[in-house]
Amino acid sequence: MKLTMRLGVRSYDIIVKRGVLKRVGQLINLNRRVLVVSDAGVPKKYIKTVLAQCGQGVPVVLPQGEGSKSLEHFGEVLGVMLEHGFTRGDAVLALGGGVVGDLAGFAAASYMRGVSFINCPTTTLSQIDSSIGGKTAVNLNGTKNIIGAFYQPALVAADPDTLKTLPERHFVNGLAEAVKAGIIADEQLFELFETEDVHEKIEEILYRSLVMKKNVVEQDEREIGMRAVLNFGHTLGHAIESANHLGDLYHGECVALGMLPMIEQPSLRRRTRAVYKKLGLPSRIRYDGDAICEFIRHDKKLTADGTIRIVRAPRLGEARLDQITMQQLRAIVREGVQ
Amino acid sequence: MKLTMRLGVRSYDIIVKRGVLKRVGQLINLNRRVLVVSDAGVPKKYIKTVLAQCGQGVPVVLPQGEGSKSLEHFGEVLGVMLEHGFTRGDAVLALGGGVVGDLAGFAAASYMRGVSFINCPTTTLSQIDSSIGGKTAVNLNGTKNIIGAFYQPALVAADPDTLKTLPERHFVNGLAEAVKAGIIADEQLFELFETEDVHEKIEEILYRSLVMKKNVVEQDEREIGMRAVLNFGHTLGHAIESANHLGDLYHGECVALGMLPMIEQPSLRRRTRAVYKKLGLPSRIRYDGDAICEFIRHDKKLTADGTIRIVRAPRLGEARLDQITMQQLRAIVREGVQ
Repeated sequence: MKLTMRLGVRSYDIIVKRGVLKRVGQLINLNRRVLVVSDAGVPKKYIKTVLAQCGQGVPVVLPQGEGSKSLEHFGEVLGVMLEHGFTRGDAVLALGGGVVGDLAGFAAASYMRGVSFINCPTTTLSQIDSSIGGKTAVNLNGTKNIIGAFYQPALVAADPDTLKTLPERHFVNGLAEAVKAGIIADEQLFELFETEDVHEKIEEILYRSLVMKKNVVEQDEREIGMRAVLNFGHTLGHAIESANHLGDLYHGECVALGMLPMIEQPSLRRRTRAVYKKLGLPSRIRYDGDAICEFIRHDKKLTADGTIRIVRAPRLGEARLDQITMQQLRAIVREGVQ
Repeated sequence: MKLTMRLGVRSYDIIVKRGVLKRVGQLINLNRRVLVVSDAGVPKKYIKTVLAQCGQGVPVVLPQGEGSKSLEHFGEVLGVMLEHGFTRGDAVLALGGGVVGDLAGFAAASYMRGVSFINCPTTTLSQIDSSIGGKTAVNLNGTKNIIGAFYQPALVAADPDTLKTLPERHFVNGLAEAVKAGIIADEQLFELFETEDVHEKIEEILYRSLVMKKNVVEQDEREIGMRAVLNFGHTLGHAIESANHLGDLYHGECVALGMLPMIEQPSLRRRTRAVYKKLGLPSRIRYDGDAICEFIRHDKKLTADGTIRIVRAPRLGEARLDQITMQQLRAIVREGVQ
């Protein structure tokens, strides 16, 4: 299936189709220099499949993990492009998860002030969420996504077949963003999680999640206003992720945990926990509420007047932006873990 | 005087006025965190003048010279912003020449995917040219401006009084861009260089140059088409700059030299040389044409099909884009130095 992100001159197609990885070259010109960025976790056969379609493909394989989203790797990637004589007409193709897409996207945005960016997400999380919307970034000094650009891809080609090689926990991790889409905007999507098998229904899950995100991004490309609803669960989720020194929780798992206190109806919170249990997402965590709130204070959502903007779900299918004090946040965080 | 760059939601004012540095805070909100980026060559009194107007001013003084336009300094500047808790509502203010503006602008573009950028250029070159138009950049592995963003400032405030403290050679160096503006688009501006004293007429020179650039940028913000005419003299000029291992030529001087072979009429070339002599810009240089052409081959203007786009002036006040082969370029470069 095909969706079109309508952003004027920056519009692009999102293709979600089994086997599309073998046909990317039919959808966009790969007969040029193409930097194919992946990481050590991406099966080599996918890289070969893509390179075979490129005129002059240049593979770059990053180490796996969040550590690759650094200015150092950013510089290395750009150095490879420079070394191979990339020009403005050439392209960067991301083949992997969110880390690969974020770094490669920022490199594409910055090389010669912008070359064509093609995103081929291969994980549930990136197919559902991070591959569309144009947010690219690297981390700095332990702060996630603090450096980056809004830069829209020229094409997103998501092949659900690549999800088959993901370990189950990785597969489920990405579904947290789809559960989010259900809670804040799509009742039927949420109910699908309650009643259906997610492996069987993965294409519908991808589709419905992407439609929700597309609608929001089209209305607010640069997150000046209502795009912030997409941060539902993320403000707290990022803090849980930052506080999680053991690193034993995945990004989507932290977002899943971060959503719970932001759900206002106890009944919806119960239903959400039940979905998490069914999927294999964590539904409870012990944390130090004050420490978590300190992490949030340092997070980018804290505004100049010392208040913080959070997103809450008053009921299924709805989201609301609230501007609250740190005291109010502490109360919510405490109550939410009950 | 005030000009408005009209770029839709990215529109901004350009103020050129003696003493404006003392009143920047009246033109834009400085009552927030403001990173004031300058370099060791900027008189301290200017930095104090600006900091006195900031709610929470954070000064950063870079080493002087092109070496500061590196990814390392980019990371350092962003690290300072992070350390001081800059949020999306805060700002970066560049106070200095082109190097400062390019680096600070890219930092403003990238921090949290974009914070407000205020440019207070203090050199002839930056007041005439680099402060407007939204090109920001750093260098990588010896290649100039290879990493960057198109990112428009929120305000440009140019104080011609700051030019009084510039050494004469620095002052003249920047005028090369104004001579360029005259050659490609403004006959009267060119004639002003032939007949008037540039120190006396500096405000008119700034104004006419900025009007020319503004008109071009408004029509082609991201250099997809005719904005390329602004590169008149730059393709060859950059190569001369790169080949100039002694580093004894300034950027504007290289651009001045780079323009000569691109002027088609011998009579106009003679007039231009006479202007250079009057101003104190170099009007002749010995170089190895083949080596220069090799530098250009590695420059960003080389397209995928191996040809290069150059800008030529068929007669005074006109510019033309030409797509030529490297052989043709060699002939032009050879002929031009006669």
